[in-house]
Amino acid sequence: MKELYEPIRGFRDYIPPESEILSWICDTFREVVDSFGYREVRTPTVESFKLFAIKSGEEIRESMYVFKDKGEREVALRPEVTPSVIRVYLKELKAWPKPIRLFYIANVFRYDEPQLGRYREFTQAGVEILGADDISYDIELIEILEEFYDRIGLTDRKYKVNNVAIFRDLAMHSNLSEGYIEKLLHLLDKGLFNEAAEIFEARGSAKGARIIREIAKNKDLNDIQTLVNILESEGIYKEFKTHIDNLMNYIDYVKSIGAKVILNPAFARGIAYYTGIIFEVMAPPLNISIAGGGRYDNLTTVYGGEELSTTGFAIGVERTMLALTAQRGGNIVSNRRKVLLLLLIKDPSIFNEVYSSVRDIRRHGVVTQMEIVPSTQKLGRWLEYASKQGFSYTVIIGRKELEKGVAIIKDMEHWKQFEIPLNKLVEFLVKECE
Amino acid sequence: MKELYEPIRGFRDYIPPESEILSWICDTFREVVDSFGYREVRTPTVESFKLFAIKSGEEIRESMYVFKDKGEREVALRPEVTPSVIRVYLKELKAWPKPIRLFYIANVFRYDEPQLGRYREFTQAGVEILGADDISYDIELIEILEEFYDRIGLTDRKYKVNNVAIFRDLAMHSNLSEGYIEKLLHLLDKGLFNEAAEIFEARGSAKGARIIREIAKNKDLNDIQTLVNILESEGIYKEFKTHIDNLMNYIDYVKSIGAKVILNPAFARGIAYYTGIIFEVMAPPLNISIAGGGRYDNLTTVYGGEELSTTGFAIGVERTMLALTAQRGGNIVSNRRKVLLLLLIKDPSIFNEVYSSVRDIRRHGVVTQMEIVPSTQKLGRWLEYASKQGFSYTVIIGRKELEKGVAIIKDMEHWKQFEIPLNKLVEFLVKECE
Repeated sequence: MKELYEPIRGFRDYIPPESEILSWICDTFREVVDSFGYREVRTPTVESFKLFAIKSGEEIRESMYVFKDKGEREVALRPEVTPSVIRVYLKELKAWPKPIRLFYIANVFRYDEPQLGRYREFTQAGVEILGADDISYDIELIEILEEFYDRIGLTDRKYKVNNVAIFRDLAMHSNLSEGYIEKLLHLLDKGLFNEAAEIFEARGSAKGARIIREIAKNKDLNDIQTLVNILESEGIYKEFKTHIDNLMNYIDYVKSIGAKVILNPAFARGIAYYTGIIFEVMAPPLNISIAGGGRYDNLTTVYGGEELSTTGFAIGVERTMLALTAQRGGNIVSNRRKVLLLLLIKDPSIFNEVYSSVRDIRRHGVVTQMEIVPSTQKLGRWLEYASKQGFSYTVIIGRKELEKGVAIIKDMEHWKQFEIPLNKLVEFLVKECE
Repeated sequence: MKELYEPIRGFRDYIPPESEILSWICDTFREVVDSFGYREVRTPTVESFKLFAIKSGEEIRESMYVFKDKGEREVALRPEVTPSVIRVYLKELKAWPKPIRLFYIANVFRYDEPQLGRYREFTQAGVEILGADDISYDIELIEILEEFYDRIGLTDRKYKVNNVAIFRDLAMHSNLSEGYIEKLLHLLDKGLFNEAAEIFEARGSAKGARIIREIAKNKDLNDIQTLVNILESEGIYKEFKTHIDNLMNYIDYVKSIGAKVILNPAFARGIAYYTGIIFEVMAPPLNISIAGGGRYDNLTTVYGGEELSTTGFAIGVERTMLALTAQRGGNIVSNRRKVLLLLLIKDPSIFNEVYSSVRDIRRHGVVTQMEIVPSTQKLGRWLEYASKQGFSYTVIIGRKELEKGVAIIKDMEHWKQFEIPLNKLVEFLVKECE
């Protein structure tokens, strides 16, 4: 039977305080994107497999939860939310004035090998800007993240950036078809630079292969001039100037808001639809990216829609928690003061009288747990409970106290006990717990 | 291609304002249960099918998303969260001092025929109290719901209640095995009273059948005395007195906090594990229940754990929204004032200067959308956008304004335009948007 107590492989349970930290991260994200004017979309967890395969091809089947439902539909648990948002746009939002700023908080699924910070279900909090025909929208993504990280207190964060338009153009230059371009980006994402260069060689482009190898060699220089030099030395800088300028411009802006940017000219992302500026967030000492995104213009056309400039990102909520814990240790969600109220009388009329005070205290945001305690129970058991559970105050009201019009207060932090008039109880607790 | 724009059958997308109402309902729920001292658990969407089938049997397969994952595990998309919470308790929380108050907000899945208020994926917000060995915990569930409905403004709500312990004992009296008891409760849930009575007849209990038929006949009387009379006339009231007293006691308490209670002595719930007081919330004019729960003592033992008193409920979040919309029409989420800020200069240094003010405004909770507008774009396009999107103010800052140290403010509600010193901008907008 005990095997039933475990979640299935690759999944996990979250209990307090971790569960509460995750929710607090999501709440903070919501607050931030709301203040930037983003609107929420909620899309289904289960989507047609085709929605995800249409751009990425059949290979993604291996890394996804795909199955046939009882109606013989081939469905998938979403591995990400962006294709769903594009679907909703094409179905319902096309008439909205652009730019359209959307956000989501959703659980997603990947059938990957579990490892540190990688579970088969996790939470993504993301934004998409539809009709984002300017680099200022790419910059806004970083502004949002900076504000978000400031609010949750993740101080040490770096943005690894690049412009995949350079690779796309380089591939087109060498007459690589779209399928090869996606393979190229995929290999670069995995750091398989040699294999990436070989794609060019196989197509007869020694120049393309040389550029890829040079870029890979200089990937850690964090210097755009090196990239310019590589392209210049091959005599094709001019053709790439727009993309380079775009990247330089982007980096300048991002630096201007105080964010730490690292250019990695060999950096690509695994998802097939990126077309321009891309980024990932690194939060040392954690050695995995905790958020990522970029420009994916015209994903709409893959679904038969019109062209549309689009950019967006997704935060890994569980990974963000990991990074935060690594940087700050525990004690992330503040421990508010809590009250345990013990009512020693079982009588609907008295209950209701006391209950209206309890309701008042709770409405002031004070966590108040009330227990109706039978006369057969020992009070000591409850005081032990209160102390174990970290309550700041235990309030005791029995028949004797009601007759005197008082409540007994036990200050659990200072081991003090005193009486307070019942009509001062709300005021006292609200003030003490502020 | 257009078929790809639709969610798959039984699922749906939520866009603003509906998406925002759903989130606001969840947030309010969280606030309320937090103030009662409940702690959050987050469990996986994908669980072993056995976790759900162990109590309910193989029949539930038909109404669930069950499939084999790539590791040949028979898994299910959770149809509810309670079994997962019990699983987490058995695995991780057994040492916590009881009572343990837990809550969750989670998406769940049922392969039902879609109809009004019934989709194949929906959101449940629920609580469970573990170690809830007194009726006061059943009453607390209603207190929570009352507070929650007050806060979201759902005024017209009724609690349909009963005590399924009466049916369980009646069945045991007639030597019905556990399998028959579950079938009986299932038939009662579906309103198939004749078939329910026939179960007793088939086991030779004419008395049990008569009681069921009498109860069904009097189900709308909302009168506990009728139930007492039925049991008395069969000469078995004494054996059921505890359950009846429990129910009377419960109804008295619930009435004492001002909740509208309706006793329906024929009422059962479809889920196999209920053992005592049960309830559902009705919110006219909607004719479906929007929340439900009850006591399910010793579900732990089904998984090989020790006995444990437990009670809990789950809110249907989408149905709650439906009820709220039916009662109050639109306009549920308040329209806060929003600011559109147009920066007419593309220059990192100026951008950063203005951006720090924008950040300030946002931190005061004002929704501020900033657009960096190229000189080639017509301002009229943006004013139209601002007006369509319901912005209260449009703020324009160009080179000329910067040199003068001012911003142009367009009050979109009163069609007024004026200038304001840049250093007064934050103060002005924060005050106006309060």
